[in-house]
Amino acid sequence: MEQGPRGGGSRPAEPGPCLSSQCGADQAASVSLLSAGGAEPGSRTLAVAAVLPAGGCGERMGVPTPKQFCPVLERPLISYTLQAMERACWIKDIIVVVTGENMEAMENIIKKYKHKRISLVEAGVTRHRSIFNGLKALADNQPNSRLSKPEVVIIHDAVRPFFEEDILLKVVTAAKEHGAAGAVRPLVSTVISPSADGCLDHSLERARHRASEMPQAFLFDVIYEAYQQCSDYDLEFGTECLQLALKYCHIKAKLVEGSPDLWKVTYKRDLYAAESIIKERISQEICIVMDTKENKEHISHLLEEVLKTELNHIHVRSQALYNAGSDIQHIILEQCYNFVCVNVKEPDFQETQKLMSMLEESNFSILYSIVVVSVHFLDFKFASPSQKMESLMCIREFAKKMKKRKVLLYGLIINYSQDEQKLQESLRQGAIIIAALIKERNSALIGQLLVA
Amino acid sequence: MEQGPRGGGSRPAEPGPCLSSQCGADQAASVSLLSAGGAEPGSRTLAVAAVLPAGGCGERMGVPTPKQFCPVLERPLISYTLQAMERACWIKDIIVVVTGENMEAMENIIKKYKHKRISLVEAGVTRHRSIFNGLKALADNQPNSRLSKPEVVIIHDAVRPFFEEDILLKVVTAAKEHGAAGAVRPLVSTVISPSADGCLDHSLERARHRASEMPQAFLFDVIYEAYQQCSDYDLEFGTECLQLALKYCHIKAKLVEGSPDLWKVTYKRDLYAAESIIKERISQEICIVMDTKENKEHISHLLEEVLKTELNHIHVRSQALYNAGSDIQHIILEQCYNFVCVNVKEPDFQETQKLMSMLEESNFSILYSIVVVSVHFLDFKFASPSQKMESLMCIREFAKKMKKRKVLLYGLIINYSQDEQKLQESLRQGAIIIAALIKERNSALIGQLLVA
Repeated sequence: MEQGPRGGGSRPAEPGPCLSSQCGADQAASVSLLSAGGAEPGSRTLAVAAVLPAGGCGERMGVPTPKQFCPVLERPLISYTLQAMERACWIKDIIVVVTGENMEAMENIIKKYKHKRISLVEAGVTRHRSIFNGLKALADNQPNSRLSKPEVVIIHDAVRPFFEEDILLKVVTAAKEHGAAGAVRPLVSTVISPSADGCLDHSLERARHRASEMPQAFLFDVIYEAYQQCSDYDLEFGTECLQLALKYCHIKAKLVEGSPDLWKVTYKRDLYAAESIIKERISQEICIVMDTKENKEHISHLLEEVLKTELNHIHVRSQALYNAGSDIQHIILEQCYNFVCVNVKEPDFQETQKLMSMLEESNFSILYSIVVVSVHFLDFKFASPSQKMESLMCIREFAKKMKKRKVLLYGLIINYSQDEQKLQESLRQGAIIIAALIKERNSALIGQLLVA
Repeated sequence: MEQGPRGGGSRPAEPGPCLSSQCGADQAASVSLLSAGGAEPGSRTLAVAAVLPAGGCGERMGVPTPKQFCPVLERPLISYTLQAMERACWIKDIIVVVTGENMEAMENIIKKYKHKRISLVEAGVTRHRSIFNGLKALADNQPNSRLSKPEVVIIHDAVRPFFEEDILLKVVTAAKEHGAAGAVRPLVSTVISPSADGCLDHSLERARHRASEMPQAFLFDVIYEAYQQCSDYDLEFGTECLQLALKYCHIKAKLVEGSPDLWKVTYKRDLYAAESIIKERISQEICIVMDTKENKEHISHLLEEVLKTELNHIHVRSQALYNAGSDIQHIILEQCYNFVCVNVKEPDFQETQKLMSMLEESNFSILYSIVVVSVHFLDFKFASPSQKMESLMCIREFAKKMKKRKVLLYGLIINYSQDEQKLQESLRQGAIIIAALIKERNSALIGQLLVA
């Protein structure tokens, strides 16, 4: 049943660019933090790998797809977890343990979303057997393996995508010092012990207990030894790696208080929560693309001001279109997935079309769909918005085409009234519509022309 | 600090209509179930009351508003919990315990959403003191109280809105027999016990423990006695009512396995999940209102067929408009909050206007906003949708007006092509847009004219 590690074609000779543009800084931070945490001064960088068991069947979810493969904004949940793990450039190898039947699907996910440093290993029938398989792949003496034994190994769940690099550093540092470490959280509910007849025997004091969460980290030799020693019963029914390190290697794991982010997607409601959190995260940045350079009286700048006032929790910036080409990639790399393209100089939506061509060429919308709102101004006193709509109807076909490239295109016509108060009200209304389109990212409404 | 119960103007002499139309049947079920659960045959109906502590400050949420008052689809979370509690018509009194500073806000919530059978009691400084205050209000000998001592009291959290009447029946029945009962759930995470130096001392066997959830129920005399006996320490630091019944009255509570619905809204992500669950629940029914009676070839029926095929998890029914008047109330009472109004006979949106007048008169959109999609057909080969839009522009002002009455109005123009295949594709596109509007209930997009 067990197989050696499979590369999945995902480990390039070159390290490849990190998804986070801050990776260089992070790496430096990690090394110094790890040094401070116990490594001898001047020692080589700590070799760290991660094992993600992803062989579960998600029975608690009440859906046929295992939860790690459930789509969140059309991307499998596990891809978000890998994305978060990849942010830590100092993790050398990431071993994902999946069942044979999901091996191909997992390979496709890695390919499609360009995940790096991943190796796939076949799952065992229980979670512990899966983790053990992952560790075996990292151990010495594996024939034909490109993997090497790490000093510290992180164990994390495929269904916990919301963690910061910080907690990885903390558990790795603590594991280096104590042999084992794990993230913990306060209990949400009181824990009780039932008697044999289904009645309350006693309840546990909440303040004296903690929920054991992930990530955990271990000196590789400690956890590998524990798994080699451990009984079939432990491999079948045990749930807690920290307990194995204690039982078989007498290592008392250091407990690290984690943030609420560490929660595990367990029930269907957690998928809803995950989707809302991700939508919120990728709605925090809006780039207004305008066809002007300097004029501060320009309507684009007025819209920018209103957006900044109305959406005061969102970071709004502007960018002139004529030199946007090389900058678009940079903007997306900085995790801005929302563009408001103002068409003033040219009739219809030529400016938006230019932006769309740039987006197509940049080929960077791999992880998230990109929202583009094409904004047009018209004084409703002199022309009906429906006239403008007539000339913009081609946006519908264009939007359908762009959807395949993960760009969600919407049109918005704003009343450019000569009356200052009316203009402000239209701009405000426009800002609310833009915020709603960006927040919802609803693909059913692409190509629609909205009116503010 | 403590006050007697305050009526909140919410307990009518007449029992008043239940929000659930199935209340009669439920009540009958409850009585027979309770009899089977231990009451003597032929005995009077069991007197049951409920206490909901709602005095918490929601520190874990990370938002300034206490979580029970956080808006979910613009309605405070606690109103959903009260709505669920009210479904059980056999609960005589519902005591909500709130802090003095939230008393007026709570009274307004009760008034606005027409909650029945509620009395307000002022909270103590801890959860246990708040529950005790609620129990005192129900005990005998309260001067000027309209409340009477129940035989069984349910204790439930204000921030657990997703429970079925079934679990209330189960804990009440078990409490009647055992003196105390509480809902439990399997543990999601392993629970561990830390040593004094922040390391793992031991981990608890997951299968041998349960998370104690709500609702719980008690013979009133048992839990009241426990609270009267219990120490200041327990009132300050205890969290578990079942434990108090055990410690002070030697009652071993019966543990009742509950469903995942019993979760507690604790973190911000839980509010996201709650909103998605509620949106999903109220999107399950669509009523197509049409201006025709019999003609099966009618375009309304074609749309109905496509909606049924495309949205196969949603219940779609149709209703002729001309006799909808008296039926609209009935349809909303049956928890249908979504209407698709087809305008064919009359030009523009006269049919939708008629429906809107009926909705205004019915005055039934108290708990949820109602979505109305005004559908119009036009053969795009002979006229541009923008021409139709011109004649429908007044929908914008109309939608603004209706929003104040909690009706979200959107317009949809569907291409009524003579080409059968094109027609099917437009209808399918229309169905997808309708589903999206109903699911998102986005108030930023009201009054917009969409095109399929």
